[in-house]
Amino acid sequence: MKFEDALLPREKVFRDPVHNYIYVQHQIILDLINTKEMQRLRRVKQLGPSSFTFHGAEHSRFTHSLGVYEITRRICDIFLRNYPTKESGDGLWDDSERLVALCAALLHDIGHGAYSHTFEHIFHTNHEAITQEIITSPKTEVNKVLKKISPEFPKQVADVINHSYKNKQVVQMISSQCDADRMDYLLRDAYNTGASYGNFDLTRILRVMRPYSGGICFDVSGMHAVEDYIISRLQMYMQVYFHPVSRSMEVILTHLLKRAKELSDKMPINSSETPYLLMPFFNNNFDINDYLKLDDGVLNTYFIHWIDSKDSILSDLADRFINRRPFKSAEFTDDTEFLTTKLQKLIKQAGFDHKYYTDTNDCFDLPYDAYDPKKKSHATQIELRRPDGSMVELSKVSRLVAAVTGKQLGDERFFFPKEMLNSAQNIEIFQPIYEEFQKHIKNNQLIE
Amino acid sequence: MKFEDALLPREKVFRDPVHNYIYVQHQIILDLINTKEMQRLRRVKQLGPSSFTFHGAEHSRFTHSLGVYEITRRICDIFLRNYPTKESGDGLWDDSERLVALCAALLHDIGHGAYSHTFEHIFHTNHEAITQEIITSPKTEVNKVLKKISPEFPKQVADVINHSYKNKQVVQMISSQCDADRMDYLLRDAYNTGASYGNFDLTRILRVMRPYSGGICFDVSGMHAVEDYIISRLQMYMQVYFHPVSRSMEVILTHLLKRAKELSDKMPINSSETPYLLMPFFNNNFDINDYLKLDDGVLNTYFIHWIDSKDSILSDLADRFINRRPFKSAEFTDDTEFLTTKLQKLIKQAGFDHKYYTDTNDCFDLPYDAYDPKKKSHATQIELRRPDGSMVELSKVSRLVAAVTGKQLGDERFFFPKEMLNSAQNIEIFQPIYEEFQKHIKNNQLIE
Amino acid sequence: MKFEDALLPREKVFRDPVHNYIYVQHQIILDLINTKEMQRLRRVKQLGPSSFTFHGAEHSRFTHSLGVYEITRRICDIFLRNYPTKESGDGLWDDSERLVALCAALLHDIGHGAYSHTFEHIFHTNHEAITQEIITSPKTEVNKVLKKISPEFPKQVADVINHSYKNKQVVQMISSQCDADRMDYLLRDAYNTGASYGNFDLTRILRVMRPYSGGICFDVSGMHAVEDYIISRLQMYMQVYFHPVSRSMEVILTHLLKRAKELSDKMPINSSETPYLLMPFFNNNFDINDYLKLDDGVLNTYFIHWIDSKDSILSDLADRFINRRPFKSAEFTDDTEFLTTKLQKLIKQAGFDHKYYTDTNDCFDLPYDAYDPKKKSHATQIELRRPDGSMVELSKVSRLVAAVTGKQLGDERFFFPKEMLNSAQNIEIFQPIYEEFQKHIKNNQLIE
Amino acid sequence: MKFEDALLPREKVFRDPVHNYIYVQHQIILDLINTKEMQRLRRVKQLGPSSFTFHGAEHSRFTHSLGVYEITRRICDIFLRNYPTKESGDGLWDDSERLVALCAALLHDIGHGAYSHTFEHIFHTNHEAITQEIITSPKTEVNKVLKKISPEFPKQVADVINHSYKNKQVVQMISSQCDADRMDYLLRDAYNTGASYGNFDLTRILRVMRPYSGGICFDVSGMHAVEDYIISRLQMYMQVYFHPVSRSMEVILTHLLKRAKELSDKMPINSSETPYLLMPFFNNNFDINDYLKLDDGVLNTYFIHWIDSKDSILSDLADRFINRRPFKSAEFTDDTEFLTTKLQKLIKQAGFDHKYYTDTNDCFDLPYDAYDPKKKSHATQIELRRPDGSMVELSKVSRLVAAVTGKQLGDERFFFPKEMLNSAQNIEIFQPIYEEFQKHIKNNQLIE
Repeated sequence: MKFEDALLPREKVFRDPVHNYIYVQHQIILDLINTKEMQRLRRVKQLGPSSFTFHGAEHSRFTHSLGVYEITRRICDIFLRNYPTKESGDGLWDDSERLVALCAALLHDIGHGAYSHTFEHIFHTNHEAITQEIITSPKTEVNKVLKKISPEFPKQVADVINHSYKNKQVVQMISSQCDADRMDYLLRDAYNTGASYGNFDLTRILRVMRPYSGGICFDVSGMHAVEDYIISRLQMYMQVYFHPVSRSMEVILTHLLKRAKELSDKMPINSSETPYLLMPFFNNNFDINDYLKLDDGVLNTYFIHWIDSKDSILSDLADRFINRRPFKSAEFTDDTEFLTTKLQKLIKQAGFDHKYYTDTNDCFDLPYDAYDPKKKSHATQIELRRPDGSMVELSKVSRLVAAVTGKQLGDERFFFPKEMLNSAQNIEIFQPIYEEFQKHIKNNQLIE
Repeated sequence: MKFEDALLPREKVFRDPVHNYIYVQHQIILDLINTKEMQRLRRVKQLGPSSFTFHGAEHSRFTHSLGVYEITRRICDIFLRNYPTKESGDGLWDDSERLVALCAALLHDIGHGAYSHTFEHIFHTNHEAITQEIITSPKTEVNKVLKKISPEFPKQVADVINHSYKNKQVVQMISSQCDADRMDYLLRDAYNTGASYGNFDLTRILRVMRPYSGGICFDVSGMHAVEDYIISRLQMYMQVYFHPVSRSMEVILTHLLKRAKELSDKMPINSSETPYLLMPFFNNNFDINDYLKLDDGVLNTYFIHWIDSKDSILSDLADRFINRRPFKSAEFTDDTEFLTTKLQKLIKQAGFDHKYYTDTNDCFDLPYDAYDPKKKSHATQIELRRPDGSMVELSKVSRLVAAVTGKQLGDERFFFPKEMLNSAQNIEIFQPIYEEFQKHIKNNQLIE
Repeated sequence: MKFEDALLPREKVFRDPVHNYIYVQHQIILDLINTKEMQRLRRVKQLGPSSFTFHGAEHSRFTHSLGVYEITRRICDIFLRNYPTKESGDGLWDDSERLVALCAALLHDIGHGAYSHTFEHIFHTNHEAITQEIITSPKTEVNKVLKKISPEFPKQVADVINHSYKNKQVVQMISSQCDADRMDYLLRDAYNTGASYGNFDLTRILRVMRPYSGGICFDVSGMHAVEDYIISRLQMYMQVYFHPVSRSMEVILTHLLKRAKELSDKMPINSSETPYLLMPFFNNNFDINDYLKLDDGVLNTYFIHWIDSKDSILSDLADRFINRRPFKSAEFTDDTEFLTTKLQKLIKQAGFDHKYYTDTNDCFDLPYDAYDPKKKSHATQIELRRPDGSMVELSKVSRLVAAVTGKQLGDERFFFPKEMLNSAQNIEIFQPIYEEFQKHIKNNQLIE
Repeated sequence: MKFEDALLPREKVFRDPVHNYIYVQHQIILDLINTKEMQRLRRVKQLGPSSFTFHGAEHSRFTHSLGVYEITRRICDIFLRNYPTKESGDGLWDDSERLVALCAALLHDIGHGAYSHTFEHIFHTNHEAITQEIITSPKTEVNKVLKKISPEFPKQVADVINHSYKNKQVVQMISSQCDADRMDYLLRDAYNTGASYGNFDLTRILRVMRPYSGGICFDVSGMHAVEDYIISRLQMYMQVYFHPVSRSMEVILTHLLKRAKELSDKMPINSSETPYLLMPFFNNNFDINDYLKLDDGVLNTYFIHWIDSKDSILSDLADRFINRRPFKSAEFTDDTEFLTTKLQKLIKQAGFDHKYYTDTNDCFDLPYDAYDPKKKSHATQIELRRPDGSMVELSKVSRLVAAVTGKQLGDERFFFPKEMLNSAQNIEIFQPIYEEFQKHIKNNQLIE
């Protein structure tokens, strides 16, 4: 008997608040969950600084990864029951692809680190490259487990995640405009934040999903279910992921890490202030084992130390981050962008180092995109299948989706210390600076 | 205008997955939430090692504290609307007690630390004493905010939490057999674990709750709602809080901290292995500021370091904890307790230091108790009010509650390394030891 | 190809608020749903007069029947996946029993009529006998559909419902102390009334259910799930099914039908007042076609007519029923039962015909029962299976279940016109009668 | 004390599955609920023939009416707490309007009859006119209760419902593009059908709603909540309210009532076939009491009778309606409309009376509309309020809403007997007719 076929004598379940149960039926899936690389994801929050805005958003990348696995498993079950392949090339589902799909689903985020997006920006790491490495490097437990299937299996799993795998159905299950990854994070983030608008009808979407020669499409009868998913996704971006307070905390985090990096030459060695586990990154000389030691708690531990640092900027930014003291922000447009220079100057005059105390940040998302021969990179557009087998692209039949197709939604904001709005407790000499500053903020926007 | 009356111009809300919204109507509540002592609770998990069993249980003491505040606020609203006091001593609700009730609710867990129960056991700290200190010590931000109401206010809040406050209605809101604290944690833990049996009808319980001269009672018409709450609580204890795997992880954690403490004299100073923030506790010379620097992430950071320790026991236990490799366990009774000595011996023969690799642990809970003159300590029993004003104690009218009144429910378990059950991969010489060991485990229980 | 195997080319679904979707995979199930006998159940409310108390309880026996079908289908799926029979007599699941189980589940309530319990009482019909007849009589569409499987199939389906079918697993799926019927009605009634305490964890119960040679048992690991179900059931009985106002409306309905029957000789023929569809029942000369013409709306239509009747009692009772004017009630015990005679007399003195305006009604339920050799009739007790294959009866391990095992829970009440409590608007001469009456009602109970 | 102020000593509650509880605080509301006109709404389904498609949609107009009342009550509470009027004309909320708002909310549908839309079409009744009459006619119990407040009160309540009431805030609470009526029916229909896409965040919408001089507007910060509501509404129209099978059942009902009306001259008098309660409508000589005797069950009772009618068309259509045997349908456009004539002819050739066996039916809805000076009738557009007090119309800031503003969404369908698609069981001679017919149906659309 091949390990691949080694179904557990009886399936195991993990209680899950979003999917009720996660069903594990293969020994290899259980073994992967028990690797230290997967367990590390318990210590990395799925939404990073968003929990400063939505206090319930404390869930980890570990629970999300189990969720993506479970949705993928359900898709395989439905495909096997309703659309099993009869002969090669018929565009139907070949269930021998199940295991690579499940492993890729479970491992798709394995390379994510603590506060990934910010961390990558400062330290030039790349969570996608690290995901590939964790899966294919012989140094990891994940790799050892995967190789029990076959020597080539790790590479196949990695290929699914980097989109180069030959079976497009498997690739699109994990990564497309309506995939297991997005479906789980929308539902899970909605569940944990309490943002009910992120909900959509998962069971119904899975029912109308089907394999075809080009990958995965949807029955046209389920058009509204897909439409509803697109809208839910858009609402979550606008209301949760792009929330100004979360972005403000991320701005602070960026400046905090930047300051620390700049100071790192001067960091005392062998003292309580030394961020030992970060040193390989400060020194730009790290390997995968260094990376895998980091998690949210490790970074926070150093930030807690730094609150007592003698460097007043490092100390202040660490305090703002750990104790949740966000910057304020205002939206600006191309027409008002020029004001940011002026406001920076005022902030500097008020005594803040503008390099660390102001920033701009834009958040834009493409809620949905259809194929456009003029564009360079192409998302996989959503295809609907009519009863007679012909296909139609989603935005052709949904007025709502058409309205947002190819349109970037979001905003660009200017961040600054909250103090700039609270003149009262400041000394008199700064009063005119503050007043001038405040003249330019109205309805949470920059104005002339 | 007194600060106490300083209602926010418009109430603020926090989105909450359990209560939908948390409504904040007073400036002082907002200020308390923004203290660094409260923010620290974001970094302490509500259920500690339970998240190793129920992966969704990643919520913090911060979200729970907001929830207890919100339930208390709702109780005050209902009491004010339906049972406002007309004259002193009429046993009805005096809304000038609202603010002390709200603050006590919000702060009742403020002294909880990282992995509190285990930590206290090893380092002889006491989260209840620390809660009192955080509220009353002039060193904390919490104390500074509370003193804006009056110099005596911090003491009053602390008294509510330690049960000595004069108004018993306020005390029982926060702490009794059916209080805001328990109601929030049951609902929140059920929500996050996905354990639906922890749910009960909060709105209905709040509707039948009423103040009386002796504290808080319930309309007899709501007997079933209270009964349902008691049963839900019991189910959560049996199925979630007492889960053997969570207790196993706690056993490992205890032994890990114990080993570290024993080694602390030998811990190198000024090296990457030094647990700087723990040193005051190793040296038994800490103050409140030392305590407030600790959180789950800080402890985990040291554990991650210790995986690389040269001490093989410290390293192994740290690995088991961080990478979730729980001990196995079996239930025993008074009749089979004698077997634990024999099994310990076998474990030792198999090469494990039994001081660190075996343990017993009992978990018992008293689901409900009524007043009994023969007992030393008395819980506040639940009183039901009949239409004519007379009272009857809950277990007198509920057959279900009567069945569990005064009865300790739970079990006692023996913990041991999983390896003892997996003979296959062990060397031949140990085989008889393993076989002998396994003879004594059946249906997850110790047998002769 | 046998009809039995005629799976639908693609499964059909019905959107269901409780189970999300009802999955129909066989042509025969679709055909049964489309029979006029099944469609009639759309016009019969599941909970009868309970909707007068819980306004949301407007769901029909049709939706419940679909639900029982769906739960049975899921049990079959789980049994097939986890416990498929290998050889005859191994006590595992034989999936060739699936179709008889599904049909029995769908049809188990097919003989229920309008306000069944009351109607049967007055007209000596019997919904169980009618269920058997609908299934086995060649006059019905249901029978025609069933016979497409085989000539014996209708009888087999009927046997499952009357408990005489040879395969006890099939019988117990539909009818035992924890069966698909009860599980659906608890969940559905809870959903529609809004009574959240009726909820329990269906998925978990299904997971721990398993076939064995004696029928159906449960893994001991799922003891708490079963316990929770028993408690939920008990709560629904105490709080919803036995609600005094619903029973009061049922008392009125009983008296209304009784009065109509007594008057039926005098009913004018060929006039608007003639209850044509009821005449066969008044004349005690009906067949199955007469029975199948009745539904809630037909009875209500006659009641609406009768409000205009010249018989003042018929008219008044019809008005009280149609326009929801319930009697009041008070609980009594064996000790206070003697008072009912006295109170009846007072009601008569106040001008009400006590034959139609007072009644007693008891509601008792046996939440759970274990086998007792001394009892005549035996419910199927719930067996839990330990890891080593041995069985233990539920109340042996659950303290909560033990507390209610074999105990009848409920109460006995005396019903009377609301007017007896509202002295104010009555004429002076009756005042002493009313006062005397009211002296005997306290805390909703009869007292001396 | 005025009756108006007669708050109940303690509020009463009705358990509600959608809003958890309906809170009744005034005696007059309780009295209105207990009128026979309100109780009649229990016997009229909210969604009529939709329950033939979504079996769970069995809820009545009674439960919906309670829900609209409850939402209105919550709006009044929020307005009173956050925006109480200080002086006349300040555009804030005057709580003396509460009672008229609550009564109008409760009674807004009181004139709805059995299968209203179809019934009105055939018998030229008008539920809106009847609503006005029930409220203002001295013959009704509703009117008697309302007059206890003041002689003018019934007229005021009626005016709110017909939009002529002076206070536009009250009018818009009950009737505008985002009002208590629509919000309740969307949530309730979604709850009962199981169509989760109909859900939106009621609590959040109520939080951002506010009174202003022009009626009711929304904080711009809640733009996404309102947007989500608009989209949910659109989804419910497209997927539930416009479902082809429900419309098909409505087509059958229309033809059934039309046939009965045509036959009514020939209906035997004083026989079991006479639809006594419908006769006033057949004779076009009815008053409000005749109307109030009708409900779904009364009409169904006659349909059950008619199944046995000698008129084969009446009998067949009654059978199709009662036993749910819907017509099939296909969508057509302006371009393919001409085909309907041809298809009618084929249906006639196949032996069906095309007057009763085919029909076209269009369903279009305007999801949202903004003010347009060019249009004749104007809906109240949704205004959003910026922090500085200025207003902006919804479609100006929501790309999604803009996409559907002023656009009719829906389709036009051709209905025909299902038999036309099932050639197999028909006699040979019709075969070419059927084949010709089927050539014109593809992907559920008419084609040339």
